[in-house]
Amino acid sequence: MNNIIGYYTTQFGELWEKSLFDLVEEAIFGVLKQTNLENKQIDAVFFGNMLAGVLENNLHSTSKIAEILKINIPIFRAEAACASGGAAFNLAKTYLEANSNKNVLVVGAEKMTDYSPEEAITGLSAAASGEEQEAGLTFPGLYGMIANYYLEKYHYTEKNLSYVSVKNHFHGSLNEKAHFRKKITIKDVLQSPYVAYPLKVLDSSPISDGAAAVILTNNYDMIKKQKHSAIVLASEVITDTISLKERKNLDEILATKMAADVAFKKAKINRRDIGIAEVHDCFSIAEILAMEDLGFWKKGTGGQKIMEESTMFGGGGNLVVNTSGGLKAAGHPVGATGIKQIGEIFLQLTKQAEKRQVKNAKYGLAHNVGGSGGTAVVTILGV
Amino acid sequence: MNNIIGYYTTQFGELWEKSLFDLVEEAIFGVLKQTNLENKQIDAVFFGNMLAGVLENNLHSTSKIAEILKINIPIFRAEAACASGGAAFNLAKTYLEANSNKNVLVVGAEKMTDYSPEEAITGLSAAASGEEQEAGLTFPGLYGMIANYYLEKYHYTEKNLSYVSVKNHFHGSLNEKAHFRKKITIKDVLQSPYVAYPLKVLDSSPISDGAAAVILTNNYDMIKKQKHSAIVLASEVITDTISLKERKNLDEILATKMAADVAFKKAKINRRDIGIAEVHDCFSIAEILAMEDLGFWKKGTGGQKIMEESTMFGGGGNLVVNTSGGLKAAGHPVGATGIKQIGEIFLQLTKQAEKRQVKNAKYGLAHNVGGSGGTAVVTILGV
Repeated sequence: MNNIIGYYTTQFGELWEKSLFDLVEEAIFGVLKQTNLENKQIDAVFFGNMLAGVLENNLHSTSKIAEILKINIPIFRAEAACASGGAAFNLAKTYLEANSNKNVLVVGAEKMTDYSPEEAITGLSAAASGEEQEAGLTFPGLYGMIANYYLEKYHYTEKNLSYVSVKNHFHGSLNEKAHFRKKITIKDVLQSPYVAYPLKVLDSSPISDGAAAVILTNNYDMIKKQKHSAIVLASEVITDTISLKERKNLDEILATKMAADVAFKKAKINRRDIGIAEVHDCFSIAEILAMEDLGFWKKGTGGQKIMEESTMFGGGGNLVVNTSGGLKAAGHPVGATGIKQIGEIFLQLTKQAEKRQVKNAKYGLAHNVGGSGGTAVVTILGV
Repeated sequence: MNNIIGYYTTQFGELWEKSLFDLVEEAIFGVLKQTNLENKQIDAVFFGNMLAGVLENNLHSTSKIAEILKINIPIFRAEAACASGGAAFNLAKTYLEANSNKNVLVVGAEKMTDYSPEEAITGLSAAASGEEQEAGLTFPGLYGMIANYYLEKYHYTEKNLSYVSVKNHFHGSLNEKAHFRKKITIKDVLQSPYVAYPLKVLDSSPISDGAAAVILTNNYDMIKKQKHSAIVLASEVITDTISLKERKNLDEILATKMAADVAFKKAKINRRDIGIAEVHDCFSIAEILAMEDLGFWKKGTGGQKIMEESTMFGGGGNLVVNTSGGLKAAGHPVGATGIKQIGEIFLQLTKQAEKRQVKNAKYGLAHNVGGSGGTAVVTILGV
C-alpha cells in the first residue's frame, strides 16, 4: 500500500525574488523536515514542470535536483502541460508498485511571473495542437469555445459560471498559501473584463509561481513512524486528442471521465464516498465540466448545481470542492498544481487544513488536467 | 520478465521535409507493423524528447501522440536532456514491473535541423547548469575541459581520441539508417577544425533529426507469438550533479559508474559476458570515459585501448562497441538516441543487424547520458 506521509507547499503568487530552483529547494527541504526524513532516505524523485525549457531555456532539471539533494538516485521529470504534477505523482506511484520499501519524493514547480503575460501565454499555448496555435487559439480561447457551447446547449448564462470563482476565492481567503486571499462577489465576476467571451478575468486562473512536494512511501515501518498518513487508493492517467475538433463532445472531457471510471473501480469506492475534492478549475467552466465528468453531477446540471453552493466550505453539502482555493484563487504554477491538489486532500484527510478543515471526510479526490483536456489525472486518497 | 519484441527507427539525418510528429508517427506505425500489433493492443506509451518545447514551442506531446494513435491510454513524456530516450525506456520498464500482461510502446524523437546550429546549441545548453550557461560553456566546451584533463592526466594526445570517430564512422558506413555513411581516417579527424580544444568537428556527434521506437511486453503469449525477442535484464537510471565544479573527478562520469554497478548486479552477469554495447559517444572523449566507467576498461587505459581497435566490427575482440555508428556517425536526434541504442542491441542479439551483425553475442548493453554526465541510463539485454 502506497501512503502519502507529508506535504509542503511554498507560497503561491508573484515571487519575483525567487528562482525556479529556489522554490524547488524550499519545497523539497520543507517536506523532508515535515516527515523527519534525511535526503539519504529518498530513493527516487519525480519532478513535474512544464515551462522552464520554453521560458528560461532550463532543461535537465533532474540533474539540477540531484545537485540540490546531494544524492545519486533515479530522478525523473514528467511533462504533460498543466497535468505535469499529476503525471509526476502517477509515475511515482507506479515506481512504488514496482519497488518495495521505498520512499519517493514528488515535487512540482513553475516559475512564470518573471515573464510578460504574452510570453507565459505563448508558452502555455505550446500545450495546444499546432493547428490551434496557428489559428491563434490560446487556452482562454479554447475554453471560451467550450463555455459558449455548454451555456447554449444547457440554457445557462455567464452568471452560472461566476459561482465557481466566488466559491474558490472564498476558499482562497482561508488558505495562507493562496495567490489571492480576497473574497469576490458575483457582481465582481460579471463586471470583470472579457478574456475570451464568455470567460472573463475573474473566470480565469492566474499566472503564478510556486512549488509543492509530497513524500510517498510503501515502507511500513516508515508509515508507522509518521504522525500523518493517507493511502493512495488510485491514481489514473488517461490521454485524449489534443485538438478540440477531434472530440466527439465539446461539453465533455473524455479523459477525465475515463480516468475517473478506472480510478473509482480501483479504489473500490463510490462517488458519494468522496467528501473532499480538488478539481482542475483553470477556468470556471472547467470546474463545472469536471464535476460532471467525474460523475459527481449529471451532465448538463452543473450550471444549476454550482448555484446551490453545496460544494462551498460551510455550504452544508457532503462534498466540498477546491478548499485550497483551486487554481482560480490558490494560483496555478503549472507544474505545482497537480501536487498541491493532492497535498490539499492529504491535509484535509489528516485534519491539518486549519481554518478550512472539512469534517468527517474519509475519502478525497484530486483531478488535474493538461491542455484543453488532452490529459487527465485522477487520484483518490483515503484514511 | 520484460521483453523487447520489436524495434523501428526512421532514417537519421537532416530531414527537412518531415516534422517532429511525422517522425514520431513513422516510428510508431513502423514498430506496430514489425510486431503485428494494432494500436488498441498498446496499454501505455512513454515518449522521450528534449527540445520540442524550446525549439518549436511544442509541449504536451503526450496528447499529440494520443491523437496519432487514436486511443485513450496513459501516455507520458520523459525529459532528461540527451538521456530522455533512456529515461523513457526506464519508466516503461518500471510500468511493466507494476502491471502484468501489458504491451508498452517507447518512442523517442527529436527534430533539430530546421533550426540554426546556434539555436540548437543554445537549446542543448539548457541541460547545463545556469552558472555554466552564463559562463558561455556549451557542451563542446564542457567535454573539451574533460578531454583536456584526461589527456594531460594520462599522457595521451588528440590522436588517441580520433580512433573513436574512425571506428564509429566505419560502423555508420554499414548502417543504412545512419546520418553519416562515410568512412573517415585518423588524418581526417586530426585535420578537422577545432570546436572546443582539444575536440574537433570529427570528434563531435552531429545535430540530427530522427525517431526510434521499441515495444516492450510482459505478456507471455505475446512474446511466444513474436519472431524476435530479447529480455530486459536491467535498466538503471542514476542522476548526478549538473555542474562539473561539483564533481570529485573530472575524468569519471560517476552516474555511469553507479548505474552500471547496479545494472550488472541486477542482471547477474559480468562485464566479460557483454558481447555488444552502444555507449554514449556525444564526443570522442565520452566513449573512452564510458568504456572505463562502465567497467570494461581500467581507468586511464582507454586512450591506449581504443587504438588497439578491438571494439571495432571485425576487429577480433569479444566486445564490439557502437555498431550503429554511435552518436558520432548514426547521428544524435537527442530524444531518439537512447531508444536507438537499445534497438541496435536488440537487432544484434536477435540476428537482424545485417551487414554489421556481430557473432555470438548473448548479452548487450546500452548506455545513454544526459548533459555532461548529470544523468546516466544503463540497460542490459539478453537472449
